[in-house]
Amino acid sequence: MGTFMDVHSGFVGVTADQLKEAHEADQAIEAEEGVHFERAWLDPESGKVFCLSTAPSREAVMRIHERAGHPTTEVYEVPIQVA
Amino acid sequence: MGTFMDVHSGFVGVTADQLKEAHEADQAIEAEEGVHFERAWLDPESGKVFCLSTAPSREAVMRIHERAGHPTTEVYEVPIQVA
Repeated sequence: MGTFMDVHSGFVGVTADQLKEAHEADQAIEAEEGVHFERAWLDPESGKVFCLSTAPSREAVMRIHERAGHPTTEVYEVPIQVA
Repeated sequence: MGTFMDVHSGFVGVTADQLKEAHEADQAIEAEEGVHFERAWLDPESGKVFCLSTAPSREAVMRIHERAGHPTTEVYEVPIQVA
Protein backbone atom coordinates (compact mmCIF):
# COMPACT_ATOMS: atom_id res chain seq x y z
CA MET A 1 0.00 0.00 0.00
CA GLY A 2 1.12 3.52 -0.78
CA THR A 3 0.01 7.07 -0.15
CA PHE A 4 -1.16 9.12 -3.12
CA MET A 5 -2.03 12.74 -3.86
CA ASP A 6 -4.12 13.36 -6.93
CA VAL A 7 -5.14 16.60 -8.59
CA HIS A 8 -8.32 17.48 -10.48
CA SER A 9 -9.00 20.61 -12.51
CA GLY A 10 -12.26 22.20 -13.63
CA PHE A 11 -14.14 22.28 -10.31
CA VAL A 12 -14.72 26.04 -10.56
CA GLY A 13 -17.63 27.20 -8.40
CA VAL A 14 -18.20 23.77 -6.85
CA THR A 15 -19.83 23.92 -3.41
CA ALA A 16 -19.04 22.08 -0.18
CA ASP A 17 -22.10 19.87 -0.68
CA GLN A 18 -21.03 18.99 -4.24
CA LEU A 19 -17.51 18.12 -3.08
CA LYS A 20 -18.94 15.94 -0.32
CA GLU A 21 -21.15 14.19 -2.89
CA ALA A 22 -18.16 13.53 -5.19
CA HIS A 23 -16.10 12.25 -2.25
CA GLU A 24 -18.93 9.94 -1.17
CA ALA A 25 -19.20 8.60 -4.74
CA ASP A 26 -15.51 7.60 -4.47
CA GLN A 27 -15.94 6.15 -1.00
CA ALA A 28 -18.95 4.08 -2.06
CA ILE A 29 -16.79 1.96 -4.40
CA GLU A 30 -13.21 2.47 -3.17
CA ALA A 31 -13.08 -0.82 -1.23
CA GLU A 32 -13.44 -2.76 -4.49
CA GLU A 33 -9.90 -1.66 -5.42
CA GLY A 34 -8.43 -1.50 -1.89
CA VAL A 35 -8.35 2.31 -2.06
CA HIS A 36 -9.23 4.68 0.78
CA PHE A 37 -9.75 8.38 0.14
CA GLU A 38 -8.80 10.19 3.33
CA ARG A 39 -9.20 13.88 2.64
CA ALA A 40 -9.92 16.30 -0.20
CA TRP A 41 -9.33 20.03 -0.52
CA LEU A 42 -11.04 22.32 -3.05
CA ASP A 43 -10.19 25.76 -4.39
CA PRO A 44 -13.48 26.79 -6.01
CA GLU A 45 -11.84 29.82 -7.66
CA SER A 46 -9.20 27.94 -9.66
CA GLY A 47 -11.24 24.73 -9.73
CA LYS A 48 -8.39 22.58 -8.34
CA VAL A 49 -9.12 19.62 -6.08
CA PHE A 50 -6.43 17.69 -4.19
CA CYS A 51 -7.27 14.20 -2.88
CA LEU A 52 -5.14 12.26 -0.40
CA SER A 53 -5.54 8.49 -0.45
CA THR A 54 -3.99 5.18 0.43
CA ALA A 55 -4.09 2.61 -2.33
CA PRO A 56 -2.28 -0.38 -3.85
CA SER A 57 -1.35 1.59 -7.00
CA ARG A 58 -1.81 4.80 -9.01
CA GLU A 59 -3.99 2.83 -11.41
CA ALA A 60 -6.36 1.79 -8.61
CA VAL A 61 -6.83 5.46 -7.62
CA MET A 62 -7.47 6.39 -11.27
CA ARG A 63 -9.99 3.58 -11.75
CA ILE A 64 -12.07 4.58 -8.71
CA HIS A 65 -12.07 8.26 -9.68
CA GLU A 66 -13.03 7.40 -13.25
CA ARG A 67 -15.88 5.10 -12.21
CA ALA A 68 -17.12 7.75 -9.73
CA GLY A 69 -17.37 10.23 -12.60
CA HIS A 70 -14.33 12.49 -12.07
CA PRO A 71 -11.34 10.96 -13.87
CA THR A 72 -7.82 12.33 -13.55
CA THR A 73 -4.45 11.12 -14.76
CA GLU A 74 -2.59 13.41 -12.36
CA VAL A 75 -1.94 10.94 -9.51
CA TYR A 76 1.33 11.11 -7.58
CA GLU A 77 2.67 8.51 -5.18
CA VAL A 78 3.98 10.43 -2.16
CA PRO A 79 6.04 8.01 -0.07
CA ILE A 80 7.89 10.83 1.73
CA GLN A 81 5.98 13.01 4.18
CA VAL A 82 6.67 15.47 6.97
CA ALA A 83 4.34 16.87 9.60
CA MET B 1 -6.83 32.90 8.22
CA GLY B 2 -7.22 30.44 5.40
CA THR B 3 -6.06 26.97 4.44
CA PHE B 4 -3.69 26.64 1.49
CA MET B 5 -2.25 23.86 -0.65
CA ASP B 6 0.86 24.72 -2.61
CA VAL B 7 2.73 22.73 -5.22
CA HIS B 8 6.45 22.64 -6.02
CA SER B 9 8.13 20.95 -8.97
CA GLY B 10 11.71 19.87 -9.48
CA PHE B 11 12.29 17.87 -6.29
CA VAL B 12 13.30 14.75 -8.23
CA GLY B 13 15.35 12.34 -6.10
CA VAL B 14 14.97 14.40 -2.93
CA THR B 15 15.26 12.32 0.24
CA ALA B 16 13.20 12.28 3.43
CA ASP B 17 16.01 14.09 5.26
CA GLN B 18 16.17 16.79 2.59
CA LEU B 19 12.40 17.30 2.67
CA LYS B 20 12.53 17.56 6.47
CA GLU B 21 15.29 20.15 6.17
CA ALA B 22 13.29 22.22 3.66
CA HIS B 23 10.18 22.00 5.86
CA GLU B 24 12.18 23.11 8.91
CA ALA B 25 13.56 26.07 6.94
CA ASP B 26 9.95 27.16 6.36
CA GLN B 27 8.95 26.56 9.95
CA ALA B 28 11.92 28.54 11.27
CA ILE B 29 10.53 31.78 9.77
CA GLU B 30 6.81 31.07 9.22
CA ALA B 31 5.65 32.87 12.37
CA GLU B 32 6.96 36.15 10.97
CA GLU B 33 4.12 36.06 8.43
CA GLY B 34 1.51 34.28 10.55
CA VAL B 35 1.89 31.13 8.42
CA HIS B 36 1.95 27.56 9.70
CA PHE B 37 3.05 24.68 7.47
CA GLU B 38 1.22 21.61 8.68
CA ARG B 39 2.23 18.79 6.35
CA ALA B 40 4.15 18.14 3.17
CA TRP B 41 4.09 15.20 0.78
CA LEU B 42 6.84 14.39 -1.78
CA ASP B 43 6.86 12.25 -4.89
CA PRO B 44 10.61 11.90 -5.53
CA GLU B 45 10.00 10.34 -8.97
CA SER B 46 8.04 13.25 -10.48
CA GLY B 47 9.63 15.80 -8.15
CA LYS B 48 6.28 17.17 -6.98
CA VAL B 49 5.84 18.45 -3.41
CA PHE B 50 2.47 19.38 -1.90
CA CYS B 51 2.43 21.58 1.22
CA LEU B 52 -0.63 22.16 3.40
CA SER B 53 -0.64 25.35 5.46
CA THR B 54 -2.75 27.85 7.30
CA ALA B 55 -1.95 31.47 6.54
CA PRO B 56 -3.40 34.96 6.27
CA SER B 57 -2.92 35.03 2.46
CA ARG B 58 -1.42 33.32 -0.60
CA GLU B 59 1.24 36.00 -0.68
CA ALA B 60 2.32 35.19 2.88
CA VAL B 61 2.79 31.52 1.92
CA MET B 62 4.78 32.55 -1.16
CA ARG B 63 7.01 34.91 0.82
CA ILE B 64 7.94 32.27 3.39
CA HIS B 65 8.67 29.64 0.73
CA GLU B 66 10.74 32.13 -1.25
CA ARG B 67 12.79 33.24 1.76
CA ALA B 68 13.32 29.60 2.76
CA GLY B 69 14.85 28.94 -0.66
CA HIS B 70 12.09 27.08 -2.51
CA PRO B 71 9.78 29.61 -4.19
CA THR B 72 6.55 28.66 -5.90
CA THR B 73 3.71 30.66 -7.42
CA GLU B 74 1.38 27.67 -7.40
CA VAL B 75 -0.50 28.35 -4.15
CA TYR B 76 -4.21 27.54 -3.90
CA GLU B 77 -6.57 28.65 -1.16
CA VAL B 78 -8.68 25.59 -0.27
CA PRO B 79 -11.59 26.78 1.87
CA ILE B 80 -13.65 23.64 1.17
CA GLN B 81 -12.52 20.32 2.60
CA VAL B 82 -13.90 16.87 3.23
CA ALA B 83 -12.57 14.05 5.37
